[in-house]
Amino acid sequence: MRAAATMGGGIDIESSFFKIFFQGKELKKILMASSQVLLVTGTHGNEINGPWLFEQWSQNRELINNFGLSLVRQIGNPKALDIGRRYLDFDLNRSFRKDSQDCLTSSNYEVNRAKELCDLYGPNGSNPCSIAIDLHSTTADMGSCLVIYGRRPVDLAFSSLIQTRLGLPIYLHEGDPSQKGFLVESWSCGLVIEIGPVPQGVLEVSIVEKSRIVISASLEVLSMVRDGTAVYPDQVVVHKHLGSIDFPRDHQGKVTACIHPERQGADWELIEKGSPLFMDLNGEIERFDGKDKLAPVFINEAAYAEKQISMSLTNREVWRLEQSWKEELKELLS
Amino acid sequence: MRAAATMGGGIDIESSFFKIFFQGKELKKILMASSQVLLVTGTHGNEINGPWLFEQWSQNRELINNFGLSLVRQIGNPKALDIGRRYLDFDLNRSFRKDSQDCLTSSNYEVNRAKELCDLYGPNGSNPCSIAIDLHSTTADMGSCLVIYGRRPVDLAFSSLIQTRLGLPIYLHEGDPSQKGFLVESWSCGLVIEIGPVPQGVLEVSIVEKSRIVISASLEVLSMVRDGTAVYPDQVVVHKHLGSIDFPRDHQGKVTACIHPERQGADWELIEKGSPLFMDLNGEIERFDGKDKLAPVFINEAAYAEKQISMSLTNREVWRLEQSWKEELKELLS
Repeated sequence: MRAAATMGGGIDIESSFFKIFFQGKELKKILMASSQVLLVTGTHGNEINGPWLFEQWSQNRELINNFGLSLVRQIGNPKALDIGRRYLDFDLNRSFRKDSQDCLTSSNYEVNRAKELCDLYGPNGSNPCSIAIDLHSTTADMGSCLVIYGRRPVDLAFSSLIQTRLGLPIYLHEGDPSQKGFLVESWSCGLVIEIGPVPQGVLEVSIVEKSRIVISASLEVLSMVRDGTAVYPDQVVVHKHLGSIDFPRDHQGKVTACIHPERQGADWELIEKGSPLFMDLNGEIERFDGKDKLAPVFINEAAYAEKQISMSLTNREVWRLEQSWKEELKELLS
Repeated sequence: MRAAATMGGGIDIESSFFKIFFQGKELKKILMASSQVLLVTGTHGNEINGPWLFEQWSQNRELINNFGLSLVRQIGNPKALDIGRRYLDFDLNRSFRKDSQDCLTSSNYEVNRAKELCDLYGPNGSNPCSIAIDLHSTTADMGSCLVIYGRRPVDLAFSSLIQTRLGLPIYLHEGDPSQKGFLVESWSCGLVIEIGPVPQGVLEVSIVEKSRIVISASLEVLSMVRDGTAVYPDQVVVHKHLGSIDFPRDHQGKVTACIHPERQGADWELIEKGSPLFMDLNGEIERFDGKDKLAPVFINEAAYAEKQISMSLTNREVWRLEQSWKEELKELLS
């Protein structure tokens, strides 16, 4: 069930009439320089709703208004999408590490694909984009949300505007040495859109529609930043990553307990010390022994068991929006 | 997240004290002949709830009463379970075809595994079982249900008893030349238990518990047949397979429409002629053009896209239970 993505929605360098009449490098450079936003989906090949949306959008350019922004759309991992697997050799969304990409002889498909995307659309690429948006789906009951990495002012400004418009929670991933090399970190500004819950390999109209709404709102707020009409909130609510919890395991590494039914599907809901967390093979309950009032996310995401993550814990914080953040984002889009 | 299954719940030939004291072939034969029910799960390696139940059961033999039946438990596809994929080379639950197994030089892992299971536990195997129960999960919103293949009297008798106890729908799969080689067809009597919805690779206590309930009821009714205390219903309700519908595709075979939101999650609900069935990339609706009052099942099951099945259509029928069916099942268990 491959939904191939084609360029579209912005200026399509490869098939535009400009290419036919003007082959000069200078014009190509000018056109390329105007690409501002890289939109990626299918970064994981078994998340098929985003690629479906991109295919729809290719067939109907009116589906999502580009608000005059120039866009590049890309399927992150086309080979994995073809075979319906998350990845071939390694998780593409952990492959954007400078140290991996410097190893030019790598035979790892995803590391090479990451390098290719950077070479094409990275800040120093042949068609540089300022901002990357990476559209995912999850089996966890997260609803629609945003993920940002680190505390880059531009990401905070950008996500605050989407939050104001759609009310989405923001998961701020930071300070986790075991989880590195996310795609959007290779761009000056960028965020992940996560839509769930949906099983891997399942296409659902409701998930596609939610994806469309968030992509559309993201582009609209960027255009308003560009035009100077964006109205920022005074504050942004972030769910700050504190760490992840593995499943309980025996000495051989085998999982010995699963998510407690009270916790299953309860993403974003505050957990108290002593709340049931896991249920082991004998029905024994393991209770949460951490700080009160943390919000777990990505509870029981199918793809994270191999990463030894049963859920991640976050702290809900309200941050005041700094003037400098807004200025940096404006600068990036001008 | 491998949950290894071990023998247990019945007479465990390999580790019992009998093996230590009596190595004689005759005794082994006597003991082996007493195995009546083969219970299989993990036939698809990304369906992990059944294997979890078997692991629980291994650790706590009281978890499911075996009602004095001798049981053999097996993980159908242990290698696929280890890597969290449906299969390595081919769907194991389509590999039980006599013609495939006769090809002894096959390098196909699943075909060899199918042969191994038949050689061990088939009607002419070294430890022959009369009845096979194969426990699965599905991403479709099917709830708990039973699947039987063809109109074998013993299967109809067996499933009617579970239906009476738990009220489960029965999907009667028959007459589909494109779908052959199901595991339970290699035993004299057998059925599939399907529990859903759950994403592939996700363990959920509620799915494990539903699986336990159906396995338990299945064993109880078999023990009652053996003891002559089974009380049969006068009739059995079956959903008779009429055929499967592929997703709409273009001339290259690419899927061009997905399940309509009104149909998504509406397994077992009767569909009328003219009801929305698919929604294409442009939002155009394709309507159902078949006979009124059919009940679709396995709607949007993730694993079936590769089989070109978007859903299967069934006709709900009420069949009178024949006396001979009951006698055949009784005979099998005596």
